[in-house]
Amino acid sequence: MEPATFPIVAGRDDEEGLSKFPQTLQNSAEDASSERPRAARAERSRWVADAPRPPGAWSEVAGFLEVIAGSGGANHCVTCQRPGTRLSTGESVADAIKGMFPALEWCKRYNFHSFKNDLMAGLTLASLCIPQSIGYATLARLQPEYGLYTSVVPPLIYAMMGTSKELAIGPVAVVSMLISSMVPKLVDPTSDPVTYRNLTLTVTFFTGMFQAALGFLRFGFLVDLMSHAAVVGFTAGAAVVIGLQQLKGLLGIAHFTNKTDVVSVVASLWSSLHHNSWNLYSFIIGTSFLIFILIARFLGTRSKRLYWLPAIAPLISVIAATLIVFLTRADEHGVKIIKHVNSGLNPISVRQLRFGGPFLGDLAKIGLVVAVIALTEATAVGRSFASIKGYRLDGNKEMVAMGVMNVLGSFTSCYTATGSFSRTAVNFSAGCETPVSNIVMAVTVLLMLKFFTRLLYYTPTSILASIILAALPGLIDVREALNIWKVDKLDFLTCFGAFLGVLFVSVEVGLLIAVLVSFVNILLVAIQPGIEILGLLPGTELFRSVDQYPVAMTISGVAIVRLKSSLLCFANANFIKERILQHVTVREDEGEVANDVKPTQLVILDMSNLMSIDTSGIAALSELHQNLQDLGVEMAMTNPKWQVAHKMKVGDDNMRRSGRREIVGGTLFFISIKDAIDATLKHHQLHQPC
Amino acid sequence: MEPATFPIVAGRDDEEGLSKFPQTLQNSAEDASSERPRAARAERSRWVADAPRPPGAWSEVAGFLEVIAGSGGANHCVTCQRPGTRLSTGESVADAIKGMFPALEWCKRYNFHSFKNDLMAGLTLASLCIPQSIGYATLARLQPEYGLYTSVVPPLIYAMMGTSKELAIGPVAVVSMLISSMVPKLVDPTSDPVTYRNLTLTVTFFTGMFQAALGFLRFGFLVDLMSHAAVVGFTAGAAVVIGLQQLKGLLGIAHFTNKTDVVSVVASLWSSLHHNSWNLYSFIIGTSFLIFILIARFLGTRSKRLYWLPAIAPLISVIAATLIVFLTRADEHGVKIIKHVNSGLNPISVRQLRFGGPFLGDLAKIGLVVAVIALTEATAVGRSFASIKGYRLDGNKEMVAMGVMNVLGSFTSCYTATGSFSRTAVNFSAGCETPVSNIVMAVTVLLMLKFFTRLLYYTPTSILASIILAALPGLIDVREALNIWKVDKLDFLTCFGAFLGVLFVSVEVGLLIAVLVSFVNILLVAIQPGIEILGLLPGTELFRSVDQYPVAMTISGVAIVRLKSSLLCFANANFIKERILQHVTVREDEGEVANDVKPTQLVILDMSNLMSIDTSGIAALSELHQNLQDLGVEMAMTNPKWQVAHKMKVGDDNMRRSGRREIVGGTLFFISIKDAIDATLKHHQLHQPC
Repeated sequence: MEPATFPIVAGRDDEEGLSKFPQTLQNSAEDASSERPRAARAERSRWVADAPRPPGAWSEVAGFLEVIAGSGGANHCVTCQRPGTRLSTGESVADAIKGMFPALEWCKRYNFHSFKNDLMAGLTLASLCIPQSIGYATLARLQPEYGLYTSVVPPLIYAMMGTSKELAIGPVAVVSMLISSMVPKLVDPTSDPVTYRNLTLTVTFFTGMFQAALGFLRFGFLVDLMSHAAVVGFTAGAAVVIGLQQLKGLLGIAHFTNKTDVVSVVASLWSSLHHNSWNLYSFIIGTSFLIFILIARFLGTRSKRLYWLPAIAPLISVIAATLIVFLTRADEHGVKIIKHVNSGLNPISVRQLRFGGPFLGDLAKIGLVVAVIALTEATAVGRSFASIKGYRLDGNKEMVAMGVMNVLGSFTSCYTATGSFSRTAVNFSAGCETPVSNIVMAVTVLLMLKFFTRLLYYTPTSILASIILAALPGLIDVREALNIWKVDKLDFLTCFGAFLGVLFVSVEVGLLIAVLVSFVNILLVAIQPGIEILGLLPGTELFRSVDQYPVAMTISGVAIVRLKSSLLCFANANFIKERILQHVTVREDEGEVANDVKPTQLVILDMSNLMSIDTSGIAALSELHQNLQDLGVEMAMTNPKWQVAHKMKVGDDNMRRSGRREIVGGTLFFISIKDAIDATLKHHQLHQPC
Repeated sequence: MEPATFPIVAGRDDEEGLSKFPQTLQNSAEDASSERPRAARAERSRWVADAPRPPGAWSEVAGFLEVIAGSGGANHCVTCQRPGTRLSTGESVADAIKGMFPALEWCKRYNFHSFKNDLMAGLTLASLCIPQSIGYATLARLQPEYGLYTSVVPPLIYAMMGTSKELAIGPVAVVSMLISSMVPKLVDPTSDPVTYRNLTLTVTFFTGMFQAALGFLRFGFLVDLMSHAAVVGFTAGAAVVIGLQQLKGLLGIAHFTNKTDVVSVVASLWSSLHHNSWNLYSFIIGTSFLIFILIARFLGTRSKRLYWLPAIAPLISVIAATLIVFLTRADEHGVKIIKHVNSGLNPISVRQLRFGGPFLGDLAKIGLVVAVIALTEATAVGRSFASIKGYRLDGNKEMVAMGVMNVLGSFTSCYTATGSFSRTAVNFSAGCETPVSNIVMAVTVLLMLKFFTRLLYYTPTSILASIILAALPGLIDVREALNIWKVDKLDFLTCFGAFLGVLFVSVEVGLLIAVLVSFVNILLVAIQPGIEILGLLPGTELFRSVDQYPVAMTISGVAIVRLKSSLLCFANANFIKERILQHVTVREDEGEVANDVKPTQLVILDMSNLMSIDTSGIAALSELHQNLQDLGVEMAMTNPKWQVAHKMKVGDDNMRRSGRREIVGGTLFFISIKDAIDATLKHHQLHQPC
């Protein structure tokens, strides 16, 4: 075996100096069979006992904050590793501004070719975005023009401050549904649309403030509070709810429930069926174009060259449907049409924000919920496209960008905007290179607002419902749910629980279920009170689980036990203690054991997994030691982690002072299982079984 | 080194047969320097890859339930290890009845000597119990005789069904305070004492039902939901609240707040001071005897022979105070006295339970809270005394006993009883041997009820307050709080949070804070996103943390990283990924590193700690692999646990099907860090740093 050329960097206390790695291994192999194993073992045990004092809890928290402060950043060029250099004050300020506005970065490299691509992408985006945003505004119970406003200002701001190059900004289905399910509990949009709109703008303001705050405080990790499985379930549930509500527009029903749970919606549909308030023409128009758009989507996914087809289809449907209604005067036959859409640029809406009044707390609460959902969606979309293109997003900067865009949007009659998956996919396929595509889209919508809103007069509302319905299958990711089922059944429970919660109760409850189940899942895994039995792998000195490695051999009379959980705390300490005692005392009953196997005389507790122990855990170990001694069984503990060893020493001091028996005093800590076995074998006379 | 005589039990797939343990180690040492290391490494890697399929999630849950079913039991004689034998049906029934009534066990060994000890202990108990239970009943806003009733029936039932030999049963301070703070929110005890009493008895019924249910379902581990630290804080807060409320009785104040938070109580005291509604005589009587009882307690703890002094002192105080009031007619000077106490045995109260009406849900909720608190207290007291005497309690049987005693108590005019620490300590010091001491106490109280209640007519209420106040210092365990501070600062936060919650808000909120902080603590430890850097211990093949073992040597160019948390999930996956990338890319900036250290070229991820991974974790590992490859760094993973390895294989299949890159396919799993280093060294040409 030729020696490798890796020098070993000396440890802080090492006097051996640099030496070749495999040579050291050869040395250790020789040591094992030399005459000084006991001295070496004693020295290793001393390493365990003399470990320096671990950092206290406050430094742990400080370290955690440091990680947060340093994280979320593609602060350095990923492909080259030039270390940071010191900057002057002026350079620091310039650097900070450049950090705030990433646009200044890609601006420098901009050229006509990029602009051409972005222009195409932007126009494609706009064609999809105009009908969708009108539809989503209606979903959010706002006037149609608010959807168009929301596609003007937020994308412009994001283009200057955001770090994703593909993310397409505008109103989205899930956020619109959130607003339409939570704000009407405060004010009814049909009876008082002006106050409803004002409250929605105020919610948008709060959403922006929370998002920006999360970004500035670098608390971006909070967005990860919902596991991927929960997001899948929640989004699918939201999609079903939205779809059912679109049936109102598709069928031209006048009176419909405000509630979002599926039982109320189906009941409402059923009663309107009985009262014959469906309109046949709305149904025909809506359904035919729905089929058309779905076919266009299908063709677009099959062939990469037809990427523009699903993007164009909604706009074509709107134009065609408007023409049909105009020519056939279908509105006189009961087909509901949009009618008047306010033209002109975004009106300034600062005065419309409502901070006084009884709703302030509720609005803030809704704003927080919407902020987190919007961020979750945008982060997920942005990350997946960034990883396709091979760069990393700066999570905190994204949040700040989103926050600012929503705050300024609330001043300019926009409601909450975020990144949309379907439009980002279109943007990406259309070949966008920079956020200029968002600018192009915004300008196009602006022109639409200024000059062309009259064209929307005869647009039937059922076509808007079709457009929204056509976007929903993208939100229901059945394949991903199946993947989750295969990988982790408990994860799937989170997914399904969130789905059912949204479907049958309400959005907030579905969200709460998602977060709670995610965390209960973590708790259960963290405190699972199982133990593993370890055995020796042949040909090695390694001890591994006998279940995972059937070749591992157990040692007669010695039970080597490792805890499965990384915490020994109040919630599982007694359980684990009972489990170990059961294992020790019940083994003879198993009947599978051969006749020459001795009863257990030594229990080795391998603490490699254990990261944390509390006072209940220390008490349980002490009781375990006592109980084992009463049974005539020795106990040894191996490889304790830093903080655990330190806490047990402190716990021992406490027990000594209060006159109770110590733990560490009674059994030594060993650095490895092999050392524990060797030392205990030499130390005790072992008796024959009775 | 002489060979030990431990035969090794063959693993299921092992063909080597039995061989001597140290001989095997010698063999492995020879193998390391023989010519076939690569083949051996390949075989070990195969062990990892070919591990059998781990049990699914449902069998994990089944295993968990099995642990619950088997746990909590001192099902077998601790000192001898006779395996269980098959029982006939008759024997099984007899066994079950013996299980229900442990009294049948110790009855057999009963003799006159035991009875003498129990008689002394029982009488000592009764002398302490009579004044305390009257005081606690007043604390619970009930008539004084209800305290005496509660010291008759529950102890009798517990003596037959309980497994602790020292536990003294009766009303306790904390439970009485819980009742007096929660039930008056439904009905005011001053204006409608009859309904208040009926509701309290109904709460007792629910308490008993919940406790018995927890015991039968073997859900005893739920009692451990409050960490030891939380119990310490909660009890101390409750003690302070009780103490402040006793000032009403001590000072003879007429009007006092119903609230329990310290701000309201102090404000109420202050306003009554201004209105001069304190009674001087009550104050003098109460305070003098309070000082007397405290001195008696102090003397009793100093000398073991004077254990009876703190037990007798309250009764002496009651007798003396009653005489003083009787002789001086102090009741005509404004000293409040108990007046009439109903004599006679416990009246049957089945008809007084209130299951109809609007309060049912609230009563059940209060019953659940009281059940858990009562069980927590009794379990803590019972366990500590049992461990002093060297036996183990059967937690589930204890709960069933408590549940039955409270249910039957609710039928016989008793409110919730549980094990009391102060009285159990007295019982223990007085030399009790079996629960017969409880029977003696119950009979004594019964005689008191039948014949001597008239003696209590002139007893001032301030003496009851003194007795309760004197018992409170035992509940405020400052030394234990200091111990907790030394061992674990976060644990102390739980303790302090519970204390403040009870003190400044309410009992339920304090409880909720205690449970929540305990679990948030677990969560934070479970998902802590830290990483450890490992180095090689000289003279061994072991890799340990370089922070804990300063002698450990890092290897130049290789970063060996181990996750601190045992879960890689949505809550920490991105964090950990960033952390590892930071470590790899920032190392050159540290400035402490010697010049001949190569930049990192291999990252070894040691997964020994990792028990669980979810879809977000798998995605993060995949991204990490991609990012490292972009940096030109190799990645290897070592020692994956069973379920984690299986999940990653499944995750890989998913990714392959959706066209994304695999993780396991790209990097191999190694069984140990040494194998990973050897294999990667041989496999790659490593280039010089730029």
